[in-house]
Amino acid sequence: MKTVNVGICGLGTVGSGVVNVMQRNIAAITSRANCGLAITHVGARRDNPNCDVSDIKVSRDVFAVVKDPNVDIVVELIGGYEPAKQLVMQAIANGKHVVTANKALIAVHGNEIFAAAESRGVTVTFEAAVAGGIPIIKAIREGLSANSIEWLAGIINGTGNFILTEMRDKGREFADVLADAQRLGYAEADPTFDVEGIDAAHKLVILASLAFGMPLNFEACFTQGIADLSPQDVIFAGELGYSIKHLGIARRAEHGVELRVHPTLIPQRRLIANVDGVMNAVLVKGDAVGPTLYYGPGAGSEPTASAIVADVIDTARMLDVDRDCRVPHLAFSPDAVRPLPILPIEQISSAYYLRLTAVDKPGVLSQITQILSDAGISIEAVSQKEAQHEPDSSQSGQMVPIVLITDITVESNLRAAVGRIESLSSITDSVTFIRVESLT
Amino acid sequence: MKTVNVGICGLGTVGSGVVNVMQRNIAAITSRANCGLAITHVGARRDNPNCDVSDIKVSRDVFAVVKDPNVDIVVELIGGYEPAKQLVMQAIANGKHVVTANKALIAVHGNEIFAAAESRGVTVTFEAAVAGGIPIIKAIREGLSANSIEWLAGIINGTGNFILTEMRDKGREFADVLADAQRLGYAEADPTFDVEGIDAAHKLVILASLAFGMPLNFEACFTQGIADLSPQDVIFAGELGYSIKHLGIARRAEHGVELRVHPTLIPQRRLIANVDGVMNAVLVKGDAVGPTLYYGPGAGSEPTASAIVADVIDTARMLDVDRDCRVPHLAFSPDAVRPLPILPIEQISSAYYLRLTAVDKPGVLSQITQILSDAGISIEAVSQKEAQHEPDSSQSGQMVPIVLITDITVESNLRAAVGRIESLSSITDSVTFIRVESLT
Repeated sequence: MKTVNVGICGLGTVGSGVVNVMQRNIAAITSRANCGLAITHVGARRDNPNCDVSDIKVSRDVFAVVKDPNVDIVVELIGGYEPAKQLVMQAIANGKHVVTANKALIAVHGNEIFAAAESRGVTVTFEAAVAGGIPIIKAIREGLSANSIEWLAGIINGTGNFILTEMRDKGREFADVLADAQRLGYAEADPTFDVEGIDAAHKLVILASLAFGMPLNFEACFTQGIADLSPQDVIFAGELGYSIKHLGIARRAEHGVELRVHPTLIPQRRLIANVDGVMNAVLVKGDAVGPTLYYGPGAGSEPTASAIVADVIDTARMLDVDRDCRVPHLAFSPDAVRPLPILPIEQISSAYYLRLTAVDKPGVLSQITQILSDAGISIEAVSQKEAQHEPDSSQSGQMVPIVLITDITVESNLRAAVGRIESLSSITDSVTFIRVESLT
Repeated sequence: MKTVNVGICGLGTVGSGVVNVMQRNIAAITSRANCGLAITHVGARRDNPNCDVSDIKVSRDVFAVVKDPNVDIVVELIGGYEPAKQLVMQAIANGKHVVTANKALIAVHGNEIFAAAESRGVTVTFEAAVAGGIPIIKAIREGLSANSIEWLAGIINGTGNFILTEMRDKGREFADVLADAQRLGYAEADPTFDVEGIDAAHKLVILASLAFGMPLNFEACFTQGIADLSPQDVIFAGELGYSIKHLGIARRAEHGVELRVHPTLIPQRRLIANVDGVMNAVLVKGDAVGPTLYYGPGAGSEPTASAIVADVIDTARMLDVDRDCRVPHLAFSPDAVRPLPILPIEQISSAYYLRLTAVDKPGVLSQITQILSDAGISIEAVSQKEAQHEPDSSQSGQMVPIVLITDITVESNLRAAVGRIESLSSITDSVTFIRVESLT
């Protein structure tokens, strides 16, 4: 029986998880891979007390691993763009297969990396790059391969979902919850990637390319974070039967592909609306299968290691097979991967939640509904809330929040109508609008 | 580019779905498989107006397909044990790869079929045999291959789940809903396999073998149907915060494997408790990944075809690779697949819901709780319901339902305690007990 040697670059949270999982389950892993598997070289700037690498060669320079002629598979876990890209490209050039958890690297440099791997006859796998331990890449790339994927929508950032869950359950402000999440270790000291949706966009771009057979196109993804969400919107959405989730959505529309990350109202009765805390879930709609959903932990040492080691097993089992026997990097054979137009956000179609603050006097609601009607936008629900009691408000000049849910319209049309509503003298603040998806 | 020829045996609901999906998505399918794919021969006793096979050779004898030297992959969709088994064994003997949706065949004859395939160097794939379009076999066999699977629990019979959902939402009796389901085409004219849990047991046995690396052992599976469930239990469970689902559960316990299909109370806040109607879902707990869930349509023409065609694509892509490069039939290499003891139902551990009918007089509840306490069984919740008003009941002799939820205990211990409770003079009817799973 052949033995396949694995080199690991990076020994942080995920790296130690990979070492621990492989050591603990090695008998079963060997049997599943149909070959021997051994971690023979670890590259890490420092030791990690959470795993035992005493029987493994350790180098302080990660590049020593990709230069090691005895290493067959390089596991890249250093994260970020550089030197991760350089490391992966060198591994490929040296004829090594690569397994990576690096979503930023794949989303931004994946096209170049896959081309290099294809011409060198090796594979780069990245199951751990999206939704941690959930085998979502395998599901889309192989499990649903009979389908034309119509759309997918995912909760693919655990930190953001934890914050939204806390805001909903405890009526707390975004900034408060974020501070807690940082204290608990759920959020990074610099939470930009998580709360601004960049991390989710990296993952969405990868899923969309696999689903639609198009090159990775991170720049084209519309990205809106959750920092501006108010607890008021979370409460009002709940009263209307919706949960607000930070979703990545990719949809094949008539004139192009929608690719967008933003807070989204989802009907509470949908399964994905009930995915709470740090958990991830991706809903995928295929033309043959219909809707399917994949749920699990989106981060963490061993959940991520679960995906990494599964890629290692797949790669080891097929180490030397002909290139055509492997699953293509982006699900479709490279010559069939073609750019598709990505729609600017103004051209997407969605339903909308609108919250506006109006002077409480007769005729205001009618002016608003007239503007929407003139724009051809139907109203699905409208609710005028209790007046906000401000100390200096006189009875006649009280401000009241009005909440509306519209039918589906093109976003440019909605934005124009919102502009006209904002110009009404009875509307004081800017209008909040949040996209609404039925996900059916 | 090589072209792989597919023969289809059986042109019913699923067969026509396979033809339609392959014809509609052929360009993408070819690109995903890295080879040409064509349906070249269909064996069917009669035509099916729901698909167009005018360009395909059609034989009235399905055995003509497995004898056709031009066919590389045989898709078996005739169902049942015979002649399906004979057909599959002949296909293997003729050196053809097989794709099947036949859960009964795999659950009962899989060990023999896989052994034949391995010695002939071909593969038998069966993604469609469990949970229709959900790629759950791929998830367990490949996606979670790094894990030691601790347990799995699934809603794997859509008909049963439809009936339970209707009973809960509309307070209807089992027999009423079943009659409706038959009228709507969700349930077979002979619903035995669905409502007695045999269909679910076929699927559970397959999942358990993949999860734990043991031979298929259908005879050892404990199977209890849903026909005896009363709407009262559905209502009482709901009041205590539980949904009743017909679950297949496989768990690695200290002294063996639990393998059981039965109605189960699940906390309503669990995602799987909210899987309603004909949908399926499987929850899988791995030691590294933690809990993951897979959800989607468990039956139907194109959802099932989605799984069949995915298997065809995988098989075609790897048509001629060395046997060791393929994923083993039962997830682990054949020499590592070993029988594990399956625990008799008396030896499983579970929490329990008990409903008993007692004479409404002082001291009855205390007798019951004393019996449970003597058996070392803790009570998690107890609720005495409104008296049942029967026309002839006098005030003192009124019967009241009492509902209890116990802590986890060994089933033999619970059954003995139930026997002692039933022997109390104040208990008239037999005690209903239903297993309760927290699924964490």
